[in-house]
Amino acid sequence: MNIILLSGGSGKRLWPLSNDVRSKQFIKIFPKGDRTYESMVQRVYRQIKEVDASAKVTIATSKTQVSAIHNQLGTNVGISIEPCRRDTFPAIALASLYLTDELHIDPGESVVVCPVDPYVEKDYFKALKELSDLADKGEANLTLMGIEPTYPSEKYGYIIPQSMDRVSKVTQFKEKPTVDVAKDYIDQGALWNGGVFAYKLEYMIGKAHELIDFTDYKDLFAKYDTLKKISFDYAVAEKENLIQVMRFDGKWKDLGTWNTLTEAMEENVVGKGILNDTCSDVHIVNELNVPILAMGLKDVVISASPEGILVSDKEQSSYIKPYVDGLEQEIMFAEKSWGSYEVINIEKESMTIKVTLNPGHSMNYHSHRNRNEVWVVIEGCGKTIIDGMEQNISAGDVITMAAGCKHTVIADSELKLIEIQLGSEITVDDKEKHVL
Amino acid sequence: MNIILLSGGSGKRLWPLSNDVRSKQFIKIFPKGDRTYESMVQRVYRQIKEVDASAKVTIATSKTQVSAIHNQLGTNVGISIEPCRRDTFPAIALASLYLTDELHIDPGESVVVCPVDPYVEKDYFKALKELSDLADKGEANLTLMGIEPTYPSEKYGYIIPQSMDRVSKVTQFKEKPTVDVAKDYIDQGALWNGGVFAYKLEYMIGKAHELIDFTDYKDLFAKYDTLKKISFDYAVAEKENLIQVMRFDGKWKDLGTWNTLTEAMEENVVGKGILNDTCSDVHIVNELNVPILAMGLKDVVISASPEGILVSDKEQSSYIKPYVDGLEQEIMFAEKSWGSYEVINIEKESMTIKVTLNPGHSMNYHSHRNRNEVWVVIEGCGKTIIDGMEQNISAGDVITMAAGCKHTVIADSELKLIEIQLGSEITVDDKEKHVL
Repeated sequence: MNIILLSGGSGKRLWPLSNDVRSKQFIKIFPKGDRTYESMVQRVYRQIKEVDASAKVTIATSKTQVSAIHNQLGTNVGISIEPCRRDTFPAIALASLYLTDELHIDPGESVVVCPVDPYVEKDYFKALKELSDLADKGEANLTLMGIEPTYPSEKYGYIIPQSMDRVSKVTQFKEKPTVDVAKDYIDQGALWNGGVFAYKLEYMIGKAHELIDFTDYKDLFAKYDTLKKISFDYAVAEKENLIQVMRFDGKWKDLGTWNTLTEAMEENVVGKGILNDTCSDVHIVNELNVPILAMGLKDVVISASPEGILVSDKEQSSYIKPYVDGLEQEIMFAEKSWGSYEVINIEKESMTIKVTLNPGHSMNYHSHRNRNEVWVVIEGCGKTIIDGMEQNISAGDVITMAAGCKHTVIADSELKLIEIQLGSEITVDDKEKHVL
Repeated sequence: MNIILLSGGSGKRLWPLSNDVRSKQFIKIFPKGDRTYESMVQRVYRQIKEVDASAKVTIATSKTQVSAIHNQLGTNVGISIEPCRRDTFPAIALASLYLTDELHIDPGESVVVCPVDPYVEKDYFKALKELSDLADKGEANLTLMGIEPTYPSEKYGYIIPQSMDRVSKVTQFKEKPTVDVAKDYIDQGALWNGGVFAYKLEYMIGKAHELIDFTDYKDLFAKYDTLKKISFDYAVAEKENLIQVMRFDGKWKDLGTWNTLTEAMEENVVGKGILNDTCSDVHIVNELNVPILAMGLKDVVISASPEGILVSDKEQSSYIKPYVDGLEQEIMFAEKSWGSYEVINIEKESMTIKVTLNPGHSMNYHSHRNRNEVWVVIEGCGKTIIDGMEQNISAGDVITMAAGCKHTVIADSELKLIEIQLGSEITVDDKEKHVL
């Protein structure tokens, strides 16, 4: 099975765990035993591979997520990079061409498109495989998955099928309705539109050429920023006549807010936290190294990260976005392809950062115009290259780098550094990359 | 006026702001304009000086608080150090002898004893002055302040006066009663016992010699750990016949729990914090550098410090102690006589600390047996002495110290360092002091 996972943008609604450089799908929150946790994207990827070990997975996403994807899934996963955000139709067109032109998959093969962040079980991925098989048969151009509604939700679009058969033609799409209208739809056998569908690659590439003027993958990639934003439903699905839907009645949750996310959590406390016995329905997700003590609370979510602390009534938590937009905040934590960093102290003319490099990884060879840096190795070993000079390093070593000096570090084992940046104009933009 | 302020022990009930080395009276929480805040002890000291600029203030406390007192009040304040905790009678006896033997105050003078942490206004300190004047008159051996009850509290002891006169003889002391009994007392004109009283020094020194076998201040200090724990009320007040009480009906609050502390706060948010419009009666006290966002909460206190995060229903917050006792936690923040430190990162074999030295101050000259250290100066200037060698330092300088190496740093201006400790056995006890 070929599968394209659409990986969306920065999820402020799960602040403080998500931020401009870390989206919700990368938060490690689902227990996998031994007090270790996996993220949504890791969970989904693992589930796909468990159902179909030979599945070819491609993630369609923006450049900012590439580091986190490699960090969490390794380098075997395909990534179709969107040079900028242009909504789902351009993203799906580009990813489809990436499959044929870059991965050389036969245009006659089918592909399933699916969001990267549903909270589901294995039966969902078995259903995706069925969807792919249905697309192979070619009885329709598009084969959607329709999710059996569990309540008359106002949050989802609805698909109206021609019959109650497991697989049926689609008669209509409906926008997010009111509760009463949703009840009506459900009585008619309507299904939630979870943004999941299968098609033959040649079909989508044909649609792309119909709607966009381009030659091949590279050309589409190059002119991507000139494309207009348009959703796949609007551009393709709603206009297609040869379209069918397959009913899915397994477990499906959309973990977009703290409220729904905590519903999916198997443990009330992730990280250091204590709930006293007068707490009920309280969840703690704590990424800090200090404990959270919660007393006498009900229906509250508490989350702490290097970015900040949220304490919210669960219902209220869905209204978080404008407040987070209002926060002016340095990025305090980020996952990179080579590891991660965390800001641990900020002063007027200095910033102190903990840097963790994964074994075998290295930073870019780079320099800064306006700041000096000091590295103190606190764990592991590796080597530095400073203005071309190689040097082995291990815990206790100190490396000083004046502004302008080119530097990188290569980890042999997991390597941790305290990096102290010194200068009056410290910004993330003050970085020049060099060829080693 | 001579005044002895009794400064109690570690206040776990205001965790995470108080800890084993910082008591509640040192938390800077009361606004004094310009976004700066003062602690309880600073507030009380300022109020005393505003009422009586020539007041001689002595703080009776344990050794662990000396640094914080000097840091917050400077060095003009007298400190009677209790070598260990032995309850109020030994503490008051020792402090009284400190006044006569060390500060050479005439034993015929009066002194007022008062806890260091009442939340009061200037009229309270004017009343203390009256108390002192009453003691001067010598009509009674002990002159108490009785606080007019505002409700039938179960939390306080009661003083039963002979009459409703402003100053009256005391007929009886009563232990913490039930609400019904308290109502009875109040109907009889009873007053709360706030632990405030005045006496002539010679009276208390006489009592001390009566009850303890010692010669002078130095001798009492030396044998302090052999004294038995006994409260002043039990040892002296309840047995004294020549005892009077002065009614006080001004503002008086005992800020022992988060519940009462937040009642006294003029602002709902101290530090970085946002309350959305569905919050009511929510207080945030945030000592961290990242924001706290509170949504949809009612009657909740949120407090964050380098020690941890508390989120509690206000009523529930008075039951905090056992939970805090259960936390195994490094001391993450402390005020010292020379400035302060904050732990900013802990790994298996390293600890990173931000050290701030006040201008003109220095650490002890010391060494460590089992750890190497690296200092990176991030702000200010001064000098280091490393194994006897002096060196000027300023922002950007790096100093490495192997285990065993003797070192100190002296601040010319406010000086900030990042200190990285490296070793497999890092403990606060691994410290040897040396003479410079």
